[in-house]
Amino acid sequence: MEASSSDIQALMEGIGQKARAASRLLSLASSEAKNKALLQAAGTIRKRSAVILAANALDMAGARAKGLSRALLDRLLLDEKRIEAMAKGLEDVAALPDPVGRIMTEWERPNGLRIERVRVPLGVIGIIYESRPNVTADAGGLCLKSGNTAILRGGSESINSSSAIMDCLQEGLRQTGLPSECLQMIPVTDRAAVGVLLTMTKYIDVIVPRGGRSLIERVIADSRIPLFLHLEGLCHTYVDGAADLEMARKIVLNAKMRRTGICGATETLLVDRACAATHLAPLIRDLLDAGCEVRGDQDVVRVDSRVVPATDADWTTEYLDAIISARLVDGVDEAIAFINDHGSAHTDSIVTDDAARAEKFLAEVNSAIVLHNASTQFADGGEFGMGAEIGIATGKLHARGPVGLEELTTYKYRIRGSGQVRPG
Amino acid sequence: MEASSSDIQALMEGIGQKARAASRLLSLASSEAKNKALLQAAGTIRKRSAVILAANALDMAGARAKGLSRALLDRLLLDEKRIEAMAKGLEDVAALPDPVGRIMTEWERPNGLRIERVRVPLGVIGIIYESRPNVTADAGGLCLKSGNTAILRGGSESINSSSAIMDCLQEGLRQTGLPSECLQMIPVTDRAAVGVLLTMTKYIDVIVPRGGRSLIERVIADSRIPLFLHLEGLCHTYVDGAADLEMARKIVLNAKMRRTGICGATETLLVDRACAATHLAPLIRDLLDAGCEVRGDQDVVRVDSRVVPATDADWTTEYLDAIISARLVDGVDEAIAFINDHGSAHTDSIVTDDAARAEKFLAEVNSAIVLHNASTQFADGGEFGMGAEIGIATGKLHARGPVGLEELTTYKYRIRGSGQVRPG
Repeated sequence: MEASSSDIQALMEGIGQKARAASRLLSLASSEAKNKALLQAAGTIRKRSAVILAANALDMAGARAKGLSRALLDRLLLDEKRIEAMAKGLEDVAALPDPVGRIMTEWERPNGLRIERVRVPLGVIGIIYESRPNVTADAGGLCLKSGNTAILRGGSESINSSSAIMDCLQEGLRQTGLPSECLQMIPVTDRAAVGVLLTMTKYIDVIVPRGGRSLIERVIADSRIPLFLHLEGLCHTYVDGAADLEMARKIVLNAKMRRTGICGATETLLVDRACAATHLAPLIRDLLDAGCEVRGDQDVVRVDSRVVPATDADWTTEYLDAIISARLVDGVDEAIAFINDHGSAHTDSIVTDDAARAEKFLAEVNSAIVLHNASTQFADGGEFGMGAEIGIATGKLHARGPVGLEELTTYKYRIRGSGQVRPG
Repeated sequence: MEASSSDIQALMEGIGQKARAASRLLSLASSEAKNKALLQAAGTIRKRSAVILAANALDMAGARAKGLSRALLDRLLLDEKRIEAMAKGLEDVAALPDPVGRIMTEWERPNGLRIERVRVPLGVIGIIYESRPNVTADAGGLCLKSGNTAILRGGSESINSSSAIMDCLQEGLRQTGLPSECLQMIPVTDRAAVGVLLTMTKYIDVIVPRGGRSLIERVIADSRIPLFLHLEGLCHTYVDGAADLEMARKIVLNAKMRRTGICGATETLLVDRACAATHLAPLIRDLLDAGCEVRGDQDVVRVDSRVVPATDADWTTEYLDAIISARLVDGVDEAIAFINDHGSAHTDSIVTDDAARAEKFLAEVNSAIVLHNASTQFADGGEFGMGAEIGIATGKLHARGPVGLEELTTYKYRIRGSGQVRPG
């Protein structure tokens, strides 16, 4: 569907109004109602899997015609297994505890006022994502459970798949007696719609962009609405002089190679000069032997002829691929300074048997997640035990690290009195 | 001091770099060191009160020459009492518990990973304020105690007073061995400096604007940095049909007239039609007799000849003065809808003896602070028992209501392992 600029403005205004109106109802909905909507949506997704697959086939054909890369085609593809995973994901979210209404803290003042800080939904969340159509169900389910209405804007190449999934979510809402406008998909693919979305401060409380660097940069530049930013993960693993070699080998290999495309994958390996003679070669050869390209500083290139020299850009590049940059540092202080200067404040790990150095690293590295003797690939809401996440926040405000149900809420103060007035 | 645009850019870049560098040290400073700096600053303010008063006399002379209003002159004025209040305020902040390093929650995963969510400072805070020079000490002290460095930009009319106070704060830092760059005042009064400040995303984590509507609007329009917004307080008091009349009279009079210039002052009175015959006239006459102008709907104007008819604008105007708008509503549902439509999500109160209606109001009014049977003038960090506040946040993200020390922090996850790698 093509539309003029004033059409789009009117369309988006209507979507925003409906989202805000539905938000007032959804914010007060019981956990039972929200859970029922999630379970009904899961059932509908299973029942309509043929419809979803047909819509996806349409998107795949269009994407192939446009010559999209194999990686993008794989993200776009749905099959029975991925559809089942979406349905199961909604059921998992239904089973999680509801954060809304939880009293975070309460106290009584000397004048008898009783103050409660209680969790409430944020309101309306705008979600902008790229090719993966399953984000429709994952993000939509998290917003619904946390009492937030959502306006979703999927990638143009996945519009048919995402719309078919959205139909199932809305059917779940209708079957529960909740307004279907709790979750809405923007029905046009014009880029102008994103521009309007990012400036609807009256209707939207927070924007969650999920996608590659160019999407994120556009959203940062144009948004007038607060963002839950999921910036790149420039994650480091630092192998300290007091590290157990076998533990370090296991952790480094996992941190880089378990999955190279996720934000918690290590992109830079730092090795303490104090253990270079014993630790550097085995660490680097493990990576090379596993098919990882290693880009090293002058000390690392000497280890193995397969290592290529790193350029300046390598120390600030998120590869999301089987590539790692590696260098020596002079101990934990230089490691901390290097990470704080070059990292993206996402996730960083130290491997050491020295407790004091571990504590120093955990205290002084500025990142959302800092680990001792564990793989950076644990940066994940599921691995934290949160059940599900809408992303990993790298900003400092409101939410840091995995953004789950609780992080999708805010709070308000309820104060109960008996006629108190303020003196003076 | 006048400066060219490139001079200002360079100046601000230097200030930003120093603030970020100092932030790394201050974020790790002990509570003892921070408290000592606060106490030394308080002592220096007392010792140098003559210097501060002389600087203030200079500002006052300039302000009178510019023909500033009496209200602005009063905000700008310092005297021995206000100087003592600043020093005492710093000592009070020193006595508050330090939020930094506090473990908010911790748990262990089945794989043995121990996860802690721990409070850390936000980093660098930019504070933009208008005439009141004591904000320099109040806001600076809160930032320091919460481990944040701050860049302050005071109003041009108070630059001499604010700089004299800043000198005392920096002296306190120096005497404690902390970098004096933990707190910096922008030394030029050019408006262009604010423009640069609002776009220094590399150096500043959050901006706190404190001032009138035009300042706030400019900051919202130009900032590329997240804001702790302190929007206007369009606060309501709703007197329900089941309200005790004497309690309602006491609360309404206090909510409007105790201090009319603070953000928690009630600006609109809603009275349930069900009790209009008995409650409306005494409530309105109390206000009129206390010197308050009442702007009413058609029902309220009939009560007393001194009531003037309200215009549409009155239902969304923050008077900050002895003026109130007043109207009848049909019960608690209409009151809730009116407040959610016309208010600023700041602070709203219901007066009623009906517990169910009170709970409905507390649940459904969307504001940061909702009260039952108490005055809206309790919207204050001190009254909450927080000790001190940098303002009242009306946004939904990160902090809502009074922003004290805890709200000036964020968190990070510290994870302790024993060699765990992520399977699959």
